[in-house]
Amino acid sequence: MRVVKLSLALAATFSAAFATAAVKPEAAINYRQSVYNVIGWNFGPLAQMMKGKTPWDAAEFARHADRIAFLAPQLLEGFPEGSDKGAETEAKPEIWKHMDDFKVKMDDFVKQSRLLADVAKGGDEAKMKEQFKQTAGACKACHDKYRKEE
Amino acid sequence: MRVVKLSLALAATFSAAFATAAVKPEAAINYRQSVYNVIGWNFGPLAQMMKGKTPWDAAEFARHADRIAFLAPQLLEGFPEGSDKGAETEAKPEIWKHMDDFKVKMDDFVKQSRLLADVAKGGDEAKMKEQFKQTAGACKACHDKYRKEE
Repeated sequence: MRVVKLSLALAATFSAAFATAAVKPEAAINYRQSVYNVIGWNFGPLAQMMKGKTPWDAAEFARHADRIAFLAPQLLEGFPEGSDKGAETEAKPEIWKHMDDFKVKMDDFVKQSRLLADVAKGGDEAKMKEQFKQTAGACKACHDKYRKEE
Repeated sequence: MRVVKLSLALAATFSAAFATAAVKPEAAINYRQSVYNVIGWNFGPLAQMMKGKTPWDAAEFARHADRIAFLAPQLLEGFPEGSDKGAETEAKPEIWKHMDDFKVKMDDFVKQSRLLADVAKGGDEAKMKEQFKQTAGACKACHDKYRKEE
């Protein structure tokens, strides 16, 4: 029984944000910013290789690309209705006014990052570099329209 | 050429933290907290099901468990030497004094979360619940020793 009690105590800590039916805006904001941070952490080494600041390493590139592809589909749930405010956020209110368009852009990022991970498995440097640019373009298309200037 | 230039500008944004040879402590702290946040976001719905606060949904359980298993092995790189300070952190300095033990505990979390994702694919409720407790226990074992009290 002790293990069960400990587990549930821990579970309570984790699930505080989910105690109500709807996710709290600040929890969604914190979540989506965290996913972007982890994507950024993994995007960084690819960018460094692209710029020749670190040596080309196809296996390392593939490892990071795989993580980005896994995380990309997890972003959208971080933008529930009402999470345009509640904590500091770079997300423009336009997102929720044009959710269909935002989803199209998000889907494109999901698709391009999946292609990047798939191409990277093949190890062809030229193809990986080309697909990196497509992926970065998908990031930028969304940021330009829906992210506040820093 | 325009696409290339845009891509590299974006890459520069993402890779600022990687401009120097070593990762900056604040970047590592931000990264690891983000990974924990995303894990917590996915742990929450499992905890709610465990407590019967939301209906049991084996497919949903499996989806979140899979994400946790994918993220767990990404935590350790967020604890490089020197990242015991540099930003607000709940990580105790003991981590870097007992890194071998910390790694054992982290490895156990990786293992238990992988087992949870694997068991969840089978859809057996009793086994999933039992393995959830094992996974939560692995979280707690590390938190008790290496995380500051909130």
